[in-house]
Amino acid sequence: MEKRILGLDPGLAILGFGAITCKQSQAKVQSTTVNMLDFGVISTPADAEMGQRLSTLFDDLHTLMEELKPDLVAIEKLFFYRMSSTILVAQARGVMMLVLGQRRLPYVEFTPAQIKLALTGYGNAEKSEVQDAVARELDLDYIPKPDDASDALAVALTAWYQI
Amino acid sequence: MEKRILGLDPGLAILGFGAITCKQSQAKVQSTTVNMLDFGVISTPADAEMGQRLSTLFDDLHTLMEELKPDLVAIEKLFFYRMSSTILVAQARGVMMLVLGQRRLPYVEFTPAQIKLALTGYGNAEKSEVQDAVARELDLDYIPKPDDASDALAVALTAWYQI
Repeated sequence: MEKRILGLDPGLAILGFGAITCKQSQAKVQSTTVNMLDFGVISTPADAEMGQRLSTLFDDLHTLMEELKPDLVAIEKLFFYRMSSTILVAQARGVMMLVLGQRRLPYVEFTPAQIKLALTGYGNAEKSEVQDAVARELDLDYIPKPDDASDALAVALTAWYQI
Repeated sequence: MEKRILGLDPGLAILGFGAITCKQSQAKVQSTTVNMLDFGVISTPADAEMGQRLSTLFDDLHTLMEELKPDLVAIEKLFFYRMSSTILVAQARGVMMLVLGQRRLPYVEFTPAQIKLALTGYGNAEKSEVQDAVARELDLDYIPKPDDASDALAVALTAWYQI
Protein backbone atom coordinates (compact mmCIF):
# COMPACT_ATOMS: atom_id res chain seq x y z
CA MET A 1 0.00 0.00 0.00
CA GLU A 2 1.30 3.41 -0.93
CA LYS A 3 0.62 6.60 0.94
CA ARG A 4 1.44 10.10 -0.18
CA ILE A 5 2.27 12.76 2.36
CA LEU A 6 2.56 16.41 1.33
CA GLY A 7 4.51 18.70 3.63
CA LEU A 8 3.76 22.43 3.51
CA ASP A 9 5.79 25.31 4.95
CA PRO A 10 3.32 28.24 4.95
CA GLY A 11 4.32 31.68 3.71
CA LEU A 12 3.02 34.50 1.56
CA ALA A 13 6.10 35.37 -0.52
CA ILE A 14 7.30 31.74 -0.61
CA LEU A 15 5.33 28.66 0.35
CA GLY A 16 7.45 25.52 0.39
CA PHE A 17 6.09 22.10 -0.52
CA GLY A 18 7.62 18.63 -0.39
CA ALA A 19 5.89 15.34 -1.17
CA ILE A 20 6.99 11.83 -0.20
CA THR A 21 5.58 8.39 -0.91
CA CYS A 22 5.64 5.69 1.74
CA LYS A 23 5.36 2.09 0.60
CA GLN A 24 4.62 -0.86 2.82
CA SER A 25 6.25 -4.01 1.53
CA GLN A 26 4.18 -7.17 1.06
CA ALA A 27 7.07 -9.42 2.15
CA LYS A 28 6.94 -11.71 5.20
CA VAL A 29 8.93 -9.24 7.24
CA GLN A 30 6.97 -6.02 7.01
CA SER A 31 8.94 -2.91 6.19
CA THR A 32 8.21 0.52 4.83
CA THR A 33 10.26 2.55 2.41
CA VAL A 34 10.02 6.25 1.83
CA ASN A 35 10.84 8.12 -1.36
CA MET A 36 10.92 11.72 -2.47
CA LEU A 37 8.14 12.46 -4.94
CA ASP A 38 8.46 16.17 -5.60
CA PHE A 39 9.45 19.43 -3.93
CA GLY A 40 9.47 23.12 -4.75
CA VAL A 41 7.89 26.45 -3.87
CA ILE A 42 4.87 28.53 -4.76
CA SER A 43 5.88 32.16 -4.79
CA THR A 44 3.89 35.37 -5.12
CA PRO A 45 5.40 38.71 -6.19
CA ALA A 46 5.90 41.19 -3.33
CA ASP A 47 4.81 44.12 -5.52
CA ALA A 48 1.38 42.63 -6.33
CA GLU A 49 -1.75 43.54 -4.38
CA MET A 50 -2.53 41.31 -1.38
CA GLY A 51 -5.77 40.02 -2.91
CA GLN A 52 -3.96 39.05 -6.11
CA ARG A 53 -1.16 37.32 -4.20
CA LEU A 54 -3.66 35.29 -2.16
CA SER A 55 -5.60 34.52 -5.32
CA THR A 56 -2.43 33.17 -6.97
CA LEU A 57 -1.70 31.13 -3.86
CA PHE A 58 -5.24 29.73 -3.85
CA ASP A 59 -5.10 28.70 -7.53
CA ASP A 60 -1.58 27.26 -7.31
CA LEU A 61 -2.41 25.26 -4.17
CA HIS A 62 -5.45 23.70 -5.84
CA THR A 63 -3.31 22.84 -8.89
CA LEU A 64 -0.65 21.31 -6.60
CA MET A 65 -3.26 19.13 -4.86
CA GLU A 66 -4.59 18.00 -8.26
CA GLU A 67 -1.10 16.99 -9.35
CA LEU A 68 0.23 15.41 -6.17
CA LYS A 69 -3.02 13.91 -4.82
CA PRO A 70 -1.81 13.63 -1.19
CA ASP A 71 -3.46 11.26 1.28
CA LEU A 72 -2.29 13.40 4.16
CA VAL A 73 -0.97 16.94 4.52
CA ALA A 74 1.62 17.89 7.16
CA ILE A 75 2.02 21.53 8.13
CA GLU A 76 4.64 23.39 10.10
CA LYS A 77 2.90 25.21 12.93
CA LEU A 78 2.99 28.97 12.80
CA PHE A 79 6.03 30.29 14.55
CA PHE A 80 5.89 33.73 16.10
CA TYR A 81 8.19 36.27 14.51
CA ARG A 82 7.45 39.96 14.46
CA MET A 83 3.71 40.69 14.62
CA SER A 84 3.57 42.23 11.13
CA SER A 85 5.14 39.21 9.41
CA THR A 86 3.01 36.85 11.52
CA ILE A 87 -0.15 38.50 10.15
CA LEU A 88 1.09 38.10 6.56
CA VAL A 89 1.94 34.44 7.12
CA ALA A 90 -1.36 33.86 8.95
CA GLN A 91 -3.31 35.33 6.03
CA ALA A 92 -1.53 32.97 3.64
CA ARG A 93 -2.10 30.12 6.08
CA GLY A 94 -5.82 30.95 6.09
CA VAL A 95 -5.95 30.43 2.32
CA MET A 96 -3.98 27.20 2.68
CA MET A 97 -6.38 25.88 5.35
CA LEU A 98 -9.29 26.92 3.12
CA VAL A 99 -7.95 24.80 0.24
CA LEU A 100 -7.50 21.79 2.56
CA GLY A 101 -11.04 22.34 3.85
CA GLN A 102 -12.52 22.57 0.36
CA ARG A 103 -10.80 19.31 -0.59
CA ARG A 104 -11.58 17.69 2.76
CA LEU A 105 -7.94 16.68 3.11
CA PRO A 106 -6.81 15.45 6.52
CA TYR A 107 -3.84 17.28 7.98
CA VAL A 108 -1.48 17.14 10.93
CA GLU A 109 0.58 19.95 12.44
CA PHE A 110 4.01 19.96 14.06
CA THR A 111 6.03 22.61 15.82
CA PRO A 112 9.58 23.37 14.62
CA ALA A 113 10.90 21.60 17.77
CA GLN A 114 8.85 18.47 17.02
CA ILE A 115 10.22 18.37 13.48
CA LYS A 116 13.82 18.77 14.65
CA LEU A 117 13.35 16.07 17.28
CA ALA A 118 11.81 13.65 14.78
CA LEU A 119 14.58 14.08 12.20
CA THR A 120 17.72 14.46 14.31
CA GLY A 121 16.81 13.14 17.75
CA TYR A 122 16.94 16.49 19.52
CA GLY A 123 14.71 19.55 19.42
CA ASN A 124 17.46 22.16 19.24
CA ALA A 125 19.14 20.88 16.08
CA GLU A 126 20.62 23.34 13.59
CA LYS A 127 18.88 23.90 10.25
CA SER A 128 21.79 22.24 8.42
CA GLU A 129 21.47 19.10 10.56
CA VAL A 130 17.77 18.83 9.69
CA GLN A 131 18.58 19.32 6.00
CA ASP A 132 21.25 16.60 6.14
CA ALA A 133 18.74 14.25 7.78
CA VAL A 134 16.18 14.97 5.03
CA ALA A 135 18.73 14.18 2.30
CA ARG A 136 19.90 11.02 4.07
CA GLU A 137 16.40 9.72 4.77
CA LEU A 138 15.28 10.30 1.17
CA ASP A 139 18.56 8.99 -0.26
CA LEU A 140 19.34 12.23 -2.07
CA ASP A 141 22.90 13.25 -2.97
CA TYR A 142 21.97 16.93 -2.64
CA ILE A 143 20.16 19.23 -0.19
CA PRO A 144 16.74 20.22 -1.61
CA LYS A 145 16.64 23.97 -2.24
CA PRO A 146 15.38 26.50 -1.36
CA ASP A 147 15.17 26.05 2.41
CA ASP A 148 11.37 26.34 2.29
CA ALA A 149 11.16 23.17 0.18
CA SER A 150 13.60 21.32 2.43
CA ASP A 151 11.53 22.40 5.47
CA ALA A 152 8.39 21.08 3.78
CA LEU A 153 10.03 17.67 3.17
CA ALA A 154 11.11 17.65 6.83
CA VAL A 155 7.56 18.11 8.08
CA ALA A 156 6.30 15.43 5.64
CA LEU A 157 8.90 13.00 7.04
CA THR A 158 7.85 13.90 10.59
CA ALA A 159 4.28 12.91 9.71
CA TRP A 160 5.53 9.66 8.21
CA TYR A 161 7.38 8.71 11.41
CA GLN A 162 4.24 9.28 13.45
CA ILE A 163 1.63 7.41 11.43
CA MET B 1 -25.09 58.39 -9.63
CA GLU B 2 -25.31 55.72 -6.99
CA LYS B 3 -22.39 54.08 -5.29
CA ARG B 4 -22.48 51.07 -3.00
CA ILE B 5 -19.95 50.73 -0.21
CA LEU B 6 -19.66 47.50 1.76
CA GLY B 7 -18.01 47.68 5.17
CA LEU B 8 -16.44 44.53 6.60
CA ASP B 9 -15.32 43.83 10.16
CA PRO B 10 -13.10 40.73 9.84
CA GLY B 11 -13.40 37.80 12.21
CA LEU B 12 -13.48 34.02 12.17
CA ALA B 13 -16.39 33.29 14.53
CA ILE B 14 -18.31 36.42 13.48
CA LEU B 15 -17.61 38.60 10.45
CA GLY B 16 -19.72 41.76 10.41
CA PHE B 17 -20.93 43.39 7.21
CA GLY B 18 -22.78 46.63 6.55
CA ALA B 19 -23.66 48.10 3.17
CA ILE B 20 -24.65 51.68 2.36
CA THR B 21 -25.71 53.43 -0.85
CA CYS B 22 -24.55 56.96 -1.60
CA LYS B 23 -26.55 58.98 -4.11
CA GLN B 24 -25.44 62.17 -5.75
CA SER B 25 -28.38 64.45 -6.54
CA GLN B 26 -28.77 65.85 -10.06
CA ALA B 27 -30.13 69.17 -8.73
CA LYS B 28 -28.40 72.49 -9.31
CA VAL B 29 -26.92 72.47 -5.85
CA GLN B 30 -25.03 69.17 -5.66
CA SER B 31 -25.62 67.08 -2.57
CA THR B 32 -25.14 63.46 -1.62
CA THR B 33 -27.39 61.33 0.50
CA VAL B 34 -26.46 58.10 2.20
CA ASN B 35 -28.77 55.22 3.06
CA MET B 36 -28.45 51.93 4.82
CA LEU B 37 -28.78 49.03 2.39
CA ASP B 38 -28.19 45.96 4.52
CA PHE B 39 -26.24 44.74 7.52
CA GLY B 40 -25.63 41.48 9.36
CA VAL B 41 -23.00 38.90 10.17
CA ILE B 42 -21.48 35.76 8.70
CA SER B 43 -20.76 33.33 11.50
CA THR B 44 -18.93 30.01 11.60
CA PRO B 45 -19.37 27.41 14.38
CA ALA B 46 -16.49 27.27 16.87
CA ASP B 47 -16.66 23.46 17.06
CA ALA B 48 -16.12 22.94 13.30
CA GLU B 49 -12.69 22.24 11.82
CA MET B 50 -10.69 25.30 10.76
CA GLY B 51 -10.74 24.30 7.08
CA GLN B 52 -14.52 23.91 7.15
CA ARG B 53 -14.99 27.25 8.91
CA LEU B 54 -12.83 29.05 6.35
CA SER B 55 -14.63 27.21 3.55
CA THR B 56 -18.01 28.45 4.90
CA LEU B 57 -16.60 31.96 5.16
CA PHE B 58 -15.31 31.79 1.57
CA ASP B 59 -18.66 30.61 0.16
CA ASP B 60 -20.74 33.06 2.22
CA LEU B 61 -18.53 36.00 1.28
CA HIS B 62 -18.87 35.22 -2.42
CA THR B 63 -22.67 34.96 -1.98
CA LEU B 64 -22.69 38.29 -0.13
CA MET B 65 -20.75 39.99 -2.95
CA GLU B 66 -23.19 38.54 -5.51
CA GLU B 67 -26.14 39.91 -3.59
CA LEU B 68 -24.81 43.33 -2.58
CA LYS B 69 -22.64 44.07 -5.62
CA PRO B 70 -20.47 46.68 -3.89
CA ASP B 71 -18.49 49.27 -5.87
CA LEU B 72 -16.03 49.64 -3.01
CA VAL B 73 -15.19 47.60 0.07
CA ALA B 74 -14.05 49.21 3.33
CA ILE B 75 -12.22 47.11 5.91
CA GLU B 76 -11.31 47.70 9.52
CA LYS B 77 -7.57 47.24 9.89
CA LEU B 78 -6.44 44.34 11.99
CA PHE B 79 -6.10 45.38 15.58
CA PHE B 80 -3.59 43.58 17.78
CA TYR B 81 -5.13 41.59 20.59
CA ARG B 82 -3.55 38.51 22.02
CA MET B 83 -1.30 36.72 19.53
CA SER B 84 -3.48 33.58 19.33
CA SER B 85 -6.68 35.47 18.48
CA THR B 86 -4.76 37.68 16.04
CA ILE B 87 -3.69 34.59 14.10
CA LEU B 88 -7.30 33.33 13.91
CA VAL B 89 -8.55 36.72 12.72
CA ALA B 90 -5.65 37.04 10.27
CA GLN B 91 -6.48 33.63 8.76
CA ALA B 92 -10.10 34.73 8.25
CA ARG B 93 -8.86 38.03 6.88
CA GLY B 94 -6.70 36.13 4.38
CA VAL B 95 -9.80 34.39 3.01
CA MET B 96 -11.63 37.73 2.88
CA MET B 97 -8.77 39.37 0.95
CA LEU B 98 -8.72 36.34 -1.37
CA VAL B 99 -12.41 36.83 -2.23
CA LEU B 100 -11.83 40.54 -2.92
CA GLY B 101 -8.84 39.61 -5.10
CA GLN B 102 -10.79 36.99 -7.05
CA ARG B 103 -13.54 39.56 -7.74
CA ARG B 104 -11.03 42.35 -8.36
CA LEU B 105 -12.94 44.58 -5.95
CA PRO B 106 -11.20 47.79 -4.86
CA TYR B 107 -10.88 48.23 -1.13
CA VAL B 108 -9.76 50.78 1.43
CA GLU B 109 -8.61 50.17 5.00
CA PHE B 110 -9.01 52.26 8.14
CA THR B 111 -7.70 51.89 11.68
CA PRO B 112 -10.18 51.92 14.59
CA ALA B 113 -8.93 55.44 15.48
CA GLN B 114 -9.57 56.71 11.92
CA ILE B 115 -13.12 55.31 12.04
CA LYS B 116 -13.84 56.92 15.43
CA LEU B 117 -12.42 60.23 14.25
CA ALA B 118 -14.48 60.18 11.04
CA LEU B 119 -17.76 59.42 12.82
CA THR B 120 -17.51 61.39 16.06
CA GLY B 121 -14.79 63.95 15.51
CA TYR B 122 -12.27 62.39 17.88
CA GLY B 123 -10.21 59.23 17.79
CA ASN B 124 -10.82 58.11 21.36
CA ALA B 125 -14.62 57.93 21.19
CA GLU B 126 -16.50 55.22 23.07
CA LYS B 127 -18.09 52.37 21.13
CA SER B 128 -21.57 53.66 22.04
CA GLU B 129 -20.79 57.11 20.62
CA VAL B 130 -19.73 55.54 17.31
CA GLN B 131 -22.91 53.44 17.27
CA ASP B 132 -25.06 56.52 17.93
CA ALA B 133 -23.31 58.33 15.07
CA VAL B 134 -23.96 55.37 12.73
CA ALA B 135 -27.69 55.39 13.59
CA ARG B 136 -27.94 59.20 13.26
CA GLU B 137 -26.07 59.32 9.95
CA LEU B 138 -28.20 56.53 8.45
CA ASP B 139 -31.42 57.90 9.95
CA LEU B 140 -32.15 54.71 11.89
CA ASP B 141 -34.28 54.69 15.04
CA TYR B 142 -32.29 51.76 16.41
CA ILE B 143 -28.65 50.69 16.87
CA PRO B 144 -27.74 47.97 14.35
CA LYS B 145 -26.90 44.74 16.17
CA PRO B 146 -24.72 42.84 16.80
CA ASP B 147 -21.76 45.19 17.33
CA ASP B 148 -19.86 43.55 14.45
CA ALA B 149 -22.53 44.73 12.00
CA SER B 150 -22.59 48.22 13.50
CA ASP B 151 -18.76 48.34 13.24
CA ALA B 152 -19.02 47.33 9.59
CA LEU B 153 -21.48 50.16 8.86
CA ALA B 154 -19.10 52.55 10.66
CA VAL B 155 -16.18 51.62 8.39
CA ALA B 156 -18.42 51.90 5.30
CA LEU B 157 -19.43 55.42 6.38
CA THR B 158 -15.77 56.30 6.96
CA ALA B 159 -15.04 55.33 3.36
CA TRP B 160 -17.98 57.41 2.17
CA TYR B 161 -16.66 60.55 3.92
CA GLN B 162 -13.28 60.11 2.26
CA ILE B 163 -14.28 59.56 -1.36
